[in-house]
Amino acid sequence: MSEKLTGNDLLQYIDQMNDPEKLKKALEFIHPADILDALEDSDIDQISFLARLPNDILAEIIEEADDEDKNEIFDLFEGQKQQQIISEMASDELVDLLETLDPKDADDLIASLEPEEASKLKSLMRYDPETAGGIMATEFVAIKEAMTVKEALEYLQQYGEEAEALFYIYVLDKQGALQGVISLRDIVVSRFDTHLRDLTNPNVLSVTPEMDQEEVARIFHKYGFSSIPVVDQRNKMLGIITADDALEVVVDESTEDFEKMSALAHSDLEYLDSGIIDLARRRILWLLFLMISATFTGFIIQGYEAALTEMVILAAFIPILMDTGGNAGAQSATLIIRGMALGEIDISDYSKVFFKELRISLLVGVTLAVVNFLRILLFNRDMMLGITVSVAMLFTVVTAKIVGCSLPIIARKLRIDPAIMAAPIITTIVDALSLMVYFWLATTIYI
Amino acid sequence: MSEKLTGNDLLQYIDQMNDPEKLKKALEFIHPADILDALEDSDIDQISFLARLPNDILAEIIEEADDEDKNEIFDLFEGQKQQQIISEMASDELVDLLETLDPKDADDLIASLEPEEASKLKSLMRYDPETAGGIMATEFVAIKEAMTVKEALEYLQQYGEEAEALFYIYVLDKQGALQGVISLRDIVVSRFDTHLRDLTNPNVLSVTPEMDQEEVARIFHKYGFSSIPVVDQRNKMLGIITADDALEVVVDESTEDFEKMSALAHSDLEYLDSGIIDLARRRILWLLFLMISATFTGFIIQGYEAALTEMVILAAFIPILMDTGGNAGAQSATLIIRGMALGEIDISDYSKVFFKELRISLLVGVTLAVVNFLRILLFNRDMMLGITVSVAMLFTVVTAKIVGCSLPIIARKLRIDPAIMAAPIITTIVDALSLMVYFWLATTIYI
Repeated sequence: MSEKLTGNDLLQYIDQMNDPEKLKKALEFIHPADILDALEDSDIDQISFLARLPNDILAEIIEEADDEDKNEIFDLFEGQKQQQIISEMASDELVDLLETLDPKDADDLIASLEPEEASKLKSLMRYDPETAGGIMATEFVAIKEAMTVKEALEYLQQYGEEAEALFYIYVLDKQGALQGVISLRDIVVSRFDTHLRDLTNPNVLSVTPEMDQEEVARIFHKYGFSSIPVVDQRNKMLGIITADDALEVVVDESTEDFEKMSALAHSDLEYLDSGIIDLARRRILWLLFLMISATFTGFIIQGYEAALTEMVILAAFIPILMDTGGNAGAQSATLIIRGMALGEIDISDYSKVFFKELRISLLVGVTLAVVNFLRILLFNRDMMLGITVSVAMLFTVVTAKIVGCSLPIIARKLRIDPAIMAAPIITTIVDALSLMVYFWLATTIYI
Repeated sequence: MSEKLTGNDLLQYIDQMNDPEKLKKALEFIHPADILDALEDSDIDQISFLARLPNDILAEIIEEADDEDKNEIFDLFEGQKQQQIISEMASDELVDLLETLDPKDADDLIASLEPEEASKLKSLMRYDPETAGGIMATEFVAIKEAMTVKEALEYLQQYGEEAEALFYIYVLDKQGALQGVISLRDIVVSRFDTHLRDLTNPNVLSVTPEMDQEEVARIFHKYGFSSIPVVDQRNKMLGIITADDALEVVVDESTEDFEKMSALAHSDLEYLDSGIIDLARRRILWLLFLMISATFTGFIIQGYEAALTEMVILAAFIPILMDTGGNAGAQSATLIIRGMALGEIDISDYSKVFFKELRISLLVGVTLAVVNFLRILLFNRDMMLGITVSVAMLFTVVTAKIVGCSLPIIARKLRIDPAIMAAPIITTIVDALSLMVYFWLATTIYI
């Protein structure tokens, strides 16, 4: 990375600029994310520093900040200044900010806007934040097809400044219905007298505002677009979603899946910024639930107390069966959960997945069982013990893989997030089943 | 999503177009990813269909295909046609293709290119594919600052067609060193007589070709850029990386982390496209390694055979301790691994993380121990058993969280991927430690 001013350096540099015009010019080329970083690292007085910045820069800084910081920075200012700041914000970012505020304060702010702007915001806020409507911006550039490149450029010089992103320009009919798309790139590489209709792609891919943001991100990933238009059921254009929104979605959704798959409740706060109580709370409920579930496995062992008393050596193989079952199940569950998240596996593939996992589990299970059998022969010199543990091992692996591939797909079918059905829950279920079979085998063929 | 032609429909529609000009026009507006999908779904003869497509569309289809398919499609054509196709490909995509070919074939193809092009490609192929150099494209637009907007637009009309992405235009000095950046957006929204120097941002962020692709993706995520320039040590501009590359990196790296964290070897193949043997191979080595490691936990139990014979009920609490330890460790490991992947946690934060986890583990451990104690009082009516199991539980949770937060950071320090140090390994270690303490406690205070 090229060298940059950071931390106190940056802030002092900005602080020394007394001429507002010079300050504005200097700030134009410093990314708001860097100002935020600098603010976090330094011991400068936030309020007096921020108060000197122009409203559009403040708007950008708030847009850039994490959810919990947006609110904090915004609250440093009083009412009138707040109104000036939000008038500089992009619609999608403003919705994010308003959602972090007290509903009463948010309503007051919306009421301070022009009626048209206010009603647009209210309709944006009605969308679920995790849908296309929740992440789209309404600032896009629409154009009439009956222009030449030169006329289009002149039009953009007049109206382009407001757009959220200028990768594509949308062709709408008189009712606002989406007719086609022209890439800005095609406009600038074409001669001034080219007619726009020769550059228009009528086969434009669009999404509805209700589409889940994960699905939107999958479309970006598949096609590599820079932005995608959002249209209503009558094809009326409502807004655009840009590639950086998609990147944000992918990072957030992956993080949530990692959390769910490790029995963690979600939080928007970064680890180092979170308090002990908050971090403990995110873990304790799942741990309690799983601990109590594991009690049943304990009951199974208690039920075989007589067998255990007779052959205490049986207890020595509990860990190996439990660990292998947990790992084998986690492997299958992860492949299926990830495959569904990437849109590679669908509910309708269940029978294919099931038979695949069945055959894999037999292959893997037999291998592990044989290695295990040889190990027991070598160390314990007890053929029947070897058979008992190894048959239980084969059963454990097969059960783990079948449960591991089935639960995520069943969850999706029930419209629950498949990521919940990962290692922790699968381990608990497989442990109980596998120890039940192990002790049943032991009492039937071994003792 | 808007309605689109798919599968056989799409292919038949294209197939009926006998006029090459009409076909070319029709294809211009169909995304190559859709043609690929259609080819996969349909029973049409691939070779005869693809042979009718123009070279630039074939190049795009190969660019869009998964790694294993690139090769397969490309190999359908003979030498001369292959040369025509690669001459239409972007440099970063061409490198990806060449890396999937037999080295001999790749060399022959490179030798068929113009010397300048060939040497550029060879230097691109020298970069590790998972670095900035490995994912960058060399097709970018550079411009002189001493132009007006109108002159720049005329220049782009002449030279812009080749560029990989036209979000930014780079200002270079005579030696090719990067001086600044102008967004295409600023050019098109500015009046024709504006001087470019007034639009140039001199504070341009760049990366070196050696930077890890994950780090590059983090920069995209942080700043929301559409593209980033890659420069060498003397600031000479080498290429650009675009936001869709970053999205690809984030998706791939997350998938690899999910795999590693679930003891799966990596594969580029999608689950449904993979064979049974391949899928089994990805799982068996880790399972064997972990199974053999779990043997030690078994030995610990065998070491306490005497104690177990005396009090067989002790065996009933093995699952609950093992499961809780595994889950508690996985929670900590996941938070730390993910935090490091997102650049939120660094090696230098270790002591902060350690004390945080220590305090959390005491909080969580005491809660679980108390619930567990009450449960044993209720069901087993044995105070000393309750104390034994609950103290072991507290120890298990604390150990799990300390091991879970430490191993990923140690791995990073040793330049191993932290994601390896996830639930499976941590569970194995914590199981051994926790059962050791459990039986030691049992023999010391209980029996």
